[in-house]
Amino acid sequence: MFESAELGHRTSKAAYDEEVPRLREALLDAQSDVGAAASFPVLAIISGVEGAGKGETAQRLNEWMDPRHIRTHGFPAPSGEEAERPPMYRFWRALPPRGRIGIFFGSWYTMPILERAFNRIDDADLDRAVNEIRHLERMLYNEGMLMVKFWYHLSKETERQRLRELEKGPRTRWRVTKRDWALFKRYDKLREVSEHVLRETSTLEAPWIVVDASDRRYRELTTGRVLLAAMRRRLDEPETAPTVTAAPIVPQQDNVALLRSLDVDRSLERKAYEEQLEKYQGRLGLLVRSKAFRRRSLVLVFEGTDAGGKGGAIRRVAGALDPRSYRIVPVAAPTDEERAQPYLWRFWRHAPGHGEIVIFDRSWYGRVLAERVEGLASEADWMRAYEEINEFEEQWLRNGAILCKFWLQIGRDEQLRRVGRREQTRFKRLEIDQGDGRNRKKWAAYERAVADMVDRTSTEIAPWTLVEGNDKQFARVKVLRAVCRALRNAF
Amino acid sequence: MFESAELGHRTSKAAYDEEVPRLREALLDAQSDVGAAASFPVLAIISGVEGAGKGETAQRLNEWMDPRHIRTHGFPAPSGEEAERPPMYRFWRALPPRGRIGIFFGSWYTMPILERAFNRIDDADLDRAVNEIRHLERMLYNEGMLMVKFWYHLSKETERQRLRELEKGPRTRWRVTKRDWALFKRYDKLREVSEHVLRETSTLEAPWIVVDASDRRYRELTTGRVLLAAMRRRLDEPETAPTVTAAPIVPQQDNVALLRSLDVDRSLERKAYEEQLEKYQGRLGLLVRSKAFRRRSLVLVFEGTDAGGKGGAIRRVAGALDPRSYRIVPVAAPTDEERAQPYLWRFWRHAPGHGEIVIFDRSWYGRVLAERVEGLASEADWMRAYEEINEFEEQWLRNGAILCKFWLQIGRDEQLRRVGRREQTRFKRLEIDQGDGRNRKKWAAYERAVADMVDRTSTEIAPWTLVEGNDKQFARVKVLRAVCRALRNAF
Repeated sequence: MFESAELGHRTSKAAYDEEVPRLREALLDAQSDVGAAASFPVLAIISGVEGAGKGETAQRLNEWMDPRHIRTHGFPAPSGEEAERPPMYRFWRALPPRGRIGIFFGSWYTMPILERAFNRIDDADLDRAVNEIRHLERMLYNEGMLMVKFWYHLSKETERQRLRELEKGPRTRWRVTKRDWALFKRYDKLREVSEHVLRETSTLEAPWIVVDASDRRYRELTTGRVLLAAMRRRLDEPETAPTVTAAPIVPQQDNVALLRSLDVDRSLERKAYEEQLEKYQGRLGLLVRSKAFRRRSLVLVFEGTDAGGKGGAIRRVAGALDPRSYRIVPVAAPTDEERAQPYLWRFWRHAPGHGEIVIFDRSWYGRVLAERVEGLASEADWMRAYEEINEFEEQWLRNGAILCKFWLQIGRDEQLRRVGRREQTRFKRLEIDQGDGRNRKKWAAYERAVADMVDRTSTEIAPWTLVEGNDKQFARVKVLRAVCRALRNAF
Repeated sequence: MFESAELGHRTSKAAYDEEVPRLREALLDAQSDVGAAASFPVLAIISGVEGAGKGETAQRLNEWMDPRHIRTHGFPAPSGEEAERPPMYRFWRALPPRGRIGIFFGSWYTMPILERAFNRIDDADLDRAVNEIRHLERMLYNEGMLMVKFWYHLSKETERQRLRELEKGPRTRWRVTKRDWALFKRYDKLREVSEHVLRETSTLEAPWIVVDASDRRYRELTTGRVLLAAMRRRLDEPETAPTVTAAPIVPQQDNVALLRSLDVDRSLERKAYEEQLEKYQGRLGLLVRSKAFRRRSLVLVFEGTDAGGKGGAIRRVAGALDPRSYRIVPVAAPTDEERAQPYLWRFWRHAPGHGEIVIFDRSWYGRVLAERVEGLASEADWMRAYEEINEFEEQWLRNGAILCKFWLQIGRDEQLRRVGRREQTRFKRLEIDQGDGRNRKKWAAYERAVADMVDRTSTEIAPWTLVEGNDKQFARVKVLRAVCRALRNAF
């Protein structure tokens, strides 16, 4: 993979000086067009060996284009807030919005490569990390991101020379650290691991461009040219935007049967309800105050038929908790900052820290429920969402989150009754939101969507709890009990 | 101040049970109306002595209203990101947007009161803190926030009993910590300091409500009633929204003269420019890499006549820096998340951490420049902005920020020439933004606004640098030199 980058490509000063003004003008134009269209973000990943000139080239790109619309991220040690969250959190946080250019140094590649080279993780761990990256990049691609990944390569001998030269110069000495030499000692192992990772992640969606970094001018021109070509192509041929062809879901009457087989009329007497409500609220309160929870987090997802009782169930959970410890996220229309980002961004931003509880009132499942049924997402988009969601939840779980997902199901008659009552009772007015009414009419389509969702996203690590909802008391206790059980199992 | 709260107010169970359903319904209605109007945020501050039931009451408010639209913040130890920024940063971060309710425990009152009571700060420090709070609250009020501040009071004897009772109960024992008893030991001093702070901050905009907290039912009902009345009144009488009557600015020909006396034609020869550019860029690069900068930050503000050369000057500063170390914030139209917050929120969110550099391309001065001249802000709003801005900058400076503010001034003819050239040259298209053209026509009005701005916000700790801009080379070097000087002076 690196052989052709060791051939010693060079660009003469004359050729460089001749090309730069044209290249710069073209880059500025492209950047301006990207900004004006504001239809996709651009992410340039600059990775590679130490001393290869990543910093210099990023500075050059900022100089050639308008730096006011570029944001460059180095990702030094994660902050406390970042360290408490899944490793990908800091990258999500830094993603450029549509119309802007982001430059990431190393990015999500740095840690897995270094950790493997220093034997802190084994091959299986590396494969898992690579797999996670492929998922992420495919998703970003499908969300419209233009990704260009540069790997700056230096042969062992060239790198040694480079580090020595830098050390000699009084103005460049600061750039060489002990860490650089420590990494250089591992050159061969790093090369081997990097080559493996690059091969595994050089995908259709986000191929690597390996650049011979030994000559500054060649490196800069190549980087600028490739970035320009990528932007220009995307701007000029919008039809090259991603299209996913998905195998259609074969209608499965069976999976709808699961939902229909729920005995939505299960109920609980008033007295038993009050006893059990108190019991499980008390237990929940104790569980989240336990020492075991201090480095964990709790994520609750509430989805359900309209008027299915999400709000009431959430209130009973919240009632057991110190309000400082939880955050309820009512998922409504995205803000414009959210719309400028990939779909899952608006959920990532609420990733809980240690000891925190986040309750989603509707969630990322909107894409495979309302957005699917109402035709707001293309088939390709909601089809890929199942996989993306599983991957997303897995990352949160691996980070110590305890996740409970509830589907609150009520019968059709009960729904009509409740909606009718709501419209009369001012007391409940808060719960009538836009979704209501509209989707009562699409009962069968929603049934299908729910069944597919449960089929595809109820994994052994993140199962759905289907809640029989006609009797609110029964439903609330079932929810509380399930949360308590999940916490207990996790400790 | 606390005497009437020691009279032992009580509410009987019967009275409580009778009132709660009505109160709850009215609160839900009010919350719903606040959400529907989305024209102002509600902030309830719950402060007071330990063991007074702050947590219980916040939980009750969440129960009575819809917890999905309430966010309760406890403010435990600040996170690393928060600790690096001015103390008010974490509160800004947590402010509820318009239409939502926020509940803050203790809030900005906790630290000053505790630190004074434990003699970690003296009276002068406390006064400064109180003054800062008054500024903040007045600003929030003027921005439309509905603020209700509760102080839960217990007499010394009642507090002792309360803590003991809590310790006895197996379910409440966890709530009493060593810290609570440590605070109790300082009861008298805390009472004295709190009384002083409450008196000083019981303003027209945000008066305190001291609540006798000894009886749970009385405390809860009082809190609910007061919050309801405040929301209702604001909803029903929108005309009670803040109106600031400002003494008009007396036209001062003098201060315009300052601007006019600038010799905008000062220039620098090509050769001298190249030498000095390199010199100061090199120096700047070294200064921000120095050890002294690691716990500081650099904030650059660029304002100027349209086509005044802001972009070019910013690029020359950025060119000296590692792109990972800076963030350029182009200030354009606010996003909808920003519009739902007080004016300064969108700048607070970019507050730099240690060792960071933030460059604002246009800034918070927009309010006293374009918004004033274009009539986008009322006179009262832009008049109060001078004071708010000074207060805001002072907070950042106290936290270690090094702040440079540049006004780039060019002559009228030069402006016309540049704008004409830009419209032809595609190379520069990025720099033609909405502001251009529109405000070329209002030269005199802008001159006035700039002169007033400099008069009122060029303080000895945060002076403006007026930059003669007709010659771009001269301007760029002047900017770089000023930044270097500011860094040197700061170390």
